[in-house]
Amino acid sequence: MTSSASNGPDFEQMWSALLPIGRSAASGGYFRQPWHGAEVELRAWFVEEADRRGLEVEHDAFGNMVAWWRPDGAAGPAVLTGSHLDSVLDGGAFDGPLGVVSALAAYDRLVESGVRPDRPLAIGVFAEEEGSRFGRACLGSRLAVGAASWEDARSLTDADGVRLGDVVEGGAPSSWLAGVGAYVELHVEQGRGLVDLDAAVGAASGIWPHGRWRFDFTGRADHAGAARMEDRADPMLSYAMTALAANKQARLAGQRATFGRVEVAPNGTNVVPSRVSAWLDARADSPSGMADLVAEIERQAAARAERDGTSLSVTAESVTGAVSFDPVLRGRVDGLLGGAVPVLPSIAGHDAGVLQEAGIPTAMLFVRNPTGVSHAPAESAGTDDCLAGVEALATALTGLLTGPGE
Amino acid sequence: MTSSASNGPDFEQMWSALLPIGRSAASGGYFRQPWHGAEVELRAWFVEEADRRGLEVEHDAFGNMVAWWRPDGAAGPAVLTGSHLDSVLDGGAFDGPLGVVSALAAYDRLVESGVRPDRPLAIGVFAEEEGSRFGRACLGSRLAVGAASWEDARSLTDADGVRLGDVVEGGAPSSWLAGVGAYVELHVEQGRGLVDLDAAVGAASGIWPHGRWRFDFTGRADHAGAARMEDRADPMLSYAMTALAANKQARLAGQRATFGRVEVAPNGTNVVPSRVSAWLDARADSPSGMADLVAEIERQAAARAERDGTSLSVTAESVTGAVSFDPVLRGRVDGLLGGAVPVLPSIAGHDAGVLQEAGIPTAMLFVRNPTGVSHAPAESAGTDDCLAGVEALATALTGLLTGPGE
Repeated sequence: MTSSASNGPDFEQMWSALLPIGRSAASGGYFRQPWHGAEVELRAWFVEEADRRGLEVEHDAFGNMVAWWRPDGAAGPAVLTGSHLDSVLDGGAFDGPLGVVSALAAYDRLVESGVRPDRPLAIGVFAEEEGSRFGRACLGSRLAVGAASWEDARSLTDADGVRLGDVVEGGAPSSWLAGVGAYVELHVEQGRGLVDLDAAVGAASGIWPHGRWRFDFTGRADHAGAARMEDRADPMLSYAMTALAANKQARLAGQRATFGRVEVAPNGTNVVPSRVSAWLDARADSPSGMADLVAEIERQAAARAERDGTSLSVTAESVTGAVSFDPVLRGRVDGLLGGAVPVLPSIAGHDAGVLQEAGIPTAMLFVRNPTGVSHAPAESAGTDDCLAGVEALATALTGLLTGPGE
Repeated sequence: MTSSASNGPDFEQMWSALLPIGRSAASGGYFRQPWHGAEVELRAWFVEEADRRGLEVEHDAFGNMVAWWRPDGAAGPAVLTGSHLDSVLDGGAFDGPLGVVSALAAYDRLVESGVRPDRPLAIGVFAEEEGSRFGRACLGSRLAVGAASWEDARSLTDADGVRLGDVVEGGAPSSWLAGVGAYVELHVEQGRGLVDLDAAVGAASGIWPHGRWRFDFTGRADHAGAARMEDRADPMLSYAMTALAANKQARLAGQRATFGRVEVAPNGTNVVPSRVSAWLDARADSPSGMADLVAEIERQAAARAERDGTSLSVTAESVTGAVSFDPVLRGRVDGLLGGAVPVLPSIAGHDAGVLQEAGIPTAMLFVRNPTGVSHAPAESAGTDDCLAGVEALATALTGLLTGPGE
């Protein structure tokens, strides 16, 4: 439609190019841990796509990348869109990459439609959103906005003992975010809200408070045969009761509590463990609800540990309060999309929440997920719904990039 | 005392030489997995000690080693002594190596005392006794006697995916055992029996039946936040209840049941697991007691899995019936030791049990363990008690090697 169109591959071509990267043949799930194998390949792909479109790519000190579109006449605070490329272990294809591919595809629509933006567009890729390598969710965005301290984060280690400080340069919060006036992140929905509402695309009202707590149960290693049951201090029992208690409390309170990660030492069949470390993921519809939930789980864990002769130490690894996305920006996006888009809360955390809390007006769009499953191979989205997401994102960006600012 | 004395290092010197090998500075425990690092070093040490004494070392196809003393005049079935050099993960110093070092020290006493054996002495080191690498306890001895099939065992894999068939040659059961008429294994006690009896050395009556069962709970991976509690199929819950049930049933029955090893997939903090695999170690004072115990644990696990919407598969990885050590040999050893040695059961399994079940008359000596702890850094034995063990072993071997056979 215009000679300035970059004619990069379209949405479906880009999506097909990403599908094999980091995919396990065994499970069909994805292993895209940050700064490692598949994720490095995805980063190179992003830089290539940005280069192809003539977008200038900036890398910050925390591994975040941003591709800038600053055509003549564009000035003032930029509109940022994008997401992340890393996945949880054995995760789905959509969580993260859908937002990045949709951002590039939306950019292509803008160019093809001859949109002349009054302000810059930035397409961002945040690093370690899932926390699957260094254990802290939204680590790249938190470091970029200064919500996490580099002094603390630099010594985080992955499962192989590699420190974050050995992988990225680190330093002060990222200056590029100072040039951003609004963020719109498109994401696959991680539940069945849009399925129930029969809508391809939705918008987020905010994010439930959520956090991660590490429970270390320490007992005494012993022979699994020779040690009498009554002489043991077995931390596996303390942990097992805690996992059941967490599930029960979350059900009773209508909230969420999960123990999905466990490490046992020495983890031998014929050895009573010396230590069981387990990570609680808790979410609730209010900060007080979350605090009550975690306190009750911790109380029951401590009581059981005392009974087992084990000891318990609980460490809050990351705790995020409730996020309400900017009402003015949400209203503008809603208006741009014709007021037809349903609004629902996000129970998963996102870089969008980090940016909103750092004072950058933020909105999110969701694309329907027929299975409702996320962080797992069954995560999905239909092509038509994905293209509807690109369309909605392009429409919102067009409105935000042109005419008077907020 | 005699010019044929080999004058190798004495018990304490040998023991000191082994102490640093495979020891974790962090825990003080030992990591001596078979055919790997520390254990390879221990094997080389054994060959060196045998060479120093002029003993001929034979390696079989399964990684077992035997050092032969066949002086002039010695003929007929040999008396075998020894133990193993591998450890559980983060194990103690004594479980295994004490029997090997004591065997070499006892040999030295025999030589120094001018004993002229009528039959050969063999000092054996069995491979992968703990099952800490390939998951099968007493694997070396089981393969050697033909109680385990090489066809089945060759494809066992370790945590890194290395196959047993890539590590040892394998093949038919070992011919060297055909030349063995009796086995005496000295071992650190793995409970507090001798402490309570105030005795430095004891003898084993037999071994409790014991086994390992793998419990695979399969559910459905999902997002730890977005998936509603009631929509989940979380195998962690099924496992947690099973671990508690196993402990309770073992207490009620006066038996032993332990879940010491757990593997979670994908093991991410923000992911409901798709699978939890856990290994049950069960022991009982009778085969029917063990069968009842495991059946009840499996019944409760299956019921909970059904409630959780998960599925359960249970695999018996190794099951060993009750072993009674040869009464004639036990009687002879008791007589040689002056009838002063208390007799107690072993709840841990040993290569001695495998040889006994394969028709080789077998006896075991225990050395007092002040902590009663085993398979853990706190495992211990005092030097005086260790030397008393060497003395008892040398006395028993002298009697068994000289004069009329059984």
